[in-house]
Amino acid sequence: MNQPPLIALDWGTSNLRASLLDADGTVLAARSAAAGVMAIPERRFAEALMALCGDWLAAHPHCACIASGMVGSRQGWVEAPYVECPAGIADAAARLVRVAFGDGDRHHLHIVPGLRCVGADGQVDVMRGEETQLWGAGLRAGSCVVLPGTHSKWAWLGEGERVLGFETHMTGELYAVLTQHSILGRLMALDGAPAPAAFDDGVRLGLQQHAHLLHTLFAARTAGLMGQRTAHELPEFLSGLLIGAEVASARSGNSSRAIGTHVTLLGDGALCDRYARALALAGLAVQRAPHEATTRGQWRVAVAAGLTDWSL
Amino acid sequence: MNQPPLIALDWGTSNLRASLLDADGTVLAARSAAAGVMAIPERRFAEALMALCGDWLAAHPHCACIASGMVGSRQGWVEAPYVECPAGIADAAARLVRVAFGDGDRHHLHIVPGLRCVGADGQVDVMRGEETQLWGAGLRAGSCVVLPGTHSKWAWLGEGERVLGFETHMTGELYAVLTQHSILGRLMALDGAPAPAAFDDGVRLGLQQHAHLLHTLFAARTAGLMGQRTAHELPEFLSGLLIGAEVASARSGNSSRAIGTHVTLLGDGALCDRYARALALAGLAVQRAPHEATTRGQWRVAVAAGLTDWSL
Repeated sequence: MNQPPLIALDWGTSNLRASLLDADGTVLAARSAAAGVMAIPERRFAEALMALCGDWLAAHPHCACIASGMVGSRQGWVEAPYVECPAGIADAAARLVRVAFGDGDRHHLHIVPGLRCVGADGQVDVMRGEETQLWGAGLRAGSCVVLPGTHSKWAWLGEGERVLGFETHMTGELYAVLTQHSILGRLMALDGAPAPAAFDDGVRLGLQQHAHLLHTLFAARTAGLMGQRTAHELPEFLSGLLIGAEVASARSGNSSRAIGTHVTLLGDGALCDRYARALALAGLAVQRAPHEATTRGQWRVAVAAGLTDWSL
Repeated sequence: MNQPPLIALDWGTSNLRASLLDADGTVLAARSAAAGVMAIPERRFAEALMALCGDWLAAHPHCACIASGMVGSRQGWVEAPYVECPAGIADAAARLVRVAFGDGDRHHLHIVPGLRCVGADGQVDVMRGEETQLWGAGLRAGSCVVLPGTHSKWAWLGEGERVLGFETHMTGELYAVLTQHSILGRLMALDGAPAPAAFDDGVRLGLQQHAHLLHTLFAARTAGLMGQRTAHELPEFLSGLLIGAEVASARSGNSSRAIGTHVTLLGDGALCDRYARALALAGLAVQRAPHEATTRGQWRVAVAAGLTDWSL
């Protein structure tokens, strides 16, 4: 048989991305829709999936389906309870949550669970989707991995790519709410014009003053009031300040795991470039991992769960 | 002569509060209007002032007028340039900015300048209004004073009530934007129901983890996700976390001045009660200052500037 054995879904808050994989895990075709968990009306998850992948399922009726991301959250299709760290591919494969869909419920979607850990501060932390990305990136034991995003994650990997622990930082969301809804935004021009020197100054300040963030944030207002930074520079300055504070906080020994001299950056786009610059200013050696890791991670979980066995 | 010599205006962002003072500085009458700087259309400051105090001015034509607060900012009536710290009452009295108003510009308003300092982080900090409040509170040299608010201030006083330096913390505004506009707010019931145990837990966490705020903030989500805190408790937990982080940050030696074992809390209302509790949990001895300090401070600046001399 030479049928594609797997459809892999990256189903997040805003988007649904689908990939059709062959027996080697190679991507044969990919598509996406603005059908993220928050965009699905009346919990019509099955309809959204059939609308995007119905023809693939008709052509390849024995094809398995796997999904990771917010689709497994309480607001998603079916809740896939968090698996406790340390957790590897086999742990996730053993805890997939299955939901039937399509005509006569003939198809099944297997949802990858998110991970849960307790941080050095005694508080619970969670991730959903990033674990699969980590498992697809081919990372070595001992890696400290940074995944930029609205809620950035720092994760520590052990033997066999097990996720030992991780930390969420609300940096991206804080930047968004402060520029859009706080007094800091009033002096800013959010035109996206680059201001690398202002960004670097912000990073240096954040690295140095991360323990005084509630105070130092106000510098992004006074620097405008005093004419020290232009309206175009202020958002870059704030972005640098926040990312710098995140890097210093993650480094400063509170983390569940130590950070050595090397970190791996997982992701792509302008936000990752900002993190690469901030990490370099902090004196860390940065290695960038392949950013299309999600589909590979889904494939590996599906293989571990035996979902692709029929095609052997 | 037994005419009231001064009208004192506390003119902030949202409200205009006016007091008529006798020759001893005693308040004879007080009124207020929702005529703050941001509520005045087309810069009609004079009209707003005459609407509130026109009858007082007609009855007491030689009465002087003094104002402190945002009315002296760039968005206010006339900009009163910041005075550099250390700064005392005499410095402010020497730098009042005068603006004429009323029929034939027969009246004059004297605006108290704000203060400016450079913090331990090398960044400029500013206050406008709080300096006058400090000067009206009758504080001793060596006092460390906390003024809660949307942007709370920590100020250090020297000999002769001079403000040596201060620090702004964006704690109150951060609480507002996070509860109203971030993912943290989604699990919260903002009904104002007290949850003192959750607040205390937040304070303790903030005191301990202030250097990791971008991460620890996320606990206000996971504690809800995990069912550890109810929707009513979560806003109290976040409030405690932020105030605790502010207190620890101000204490941790970065401040322009040292904090000993005593602080003075200046202000009133529920927010001040929260700070009193957080400061106590941090092991600081808290003294509360008379909260109606603003009018007294305005009176003292006016006397130092000779504005009340005609009545002698």
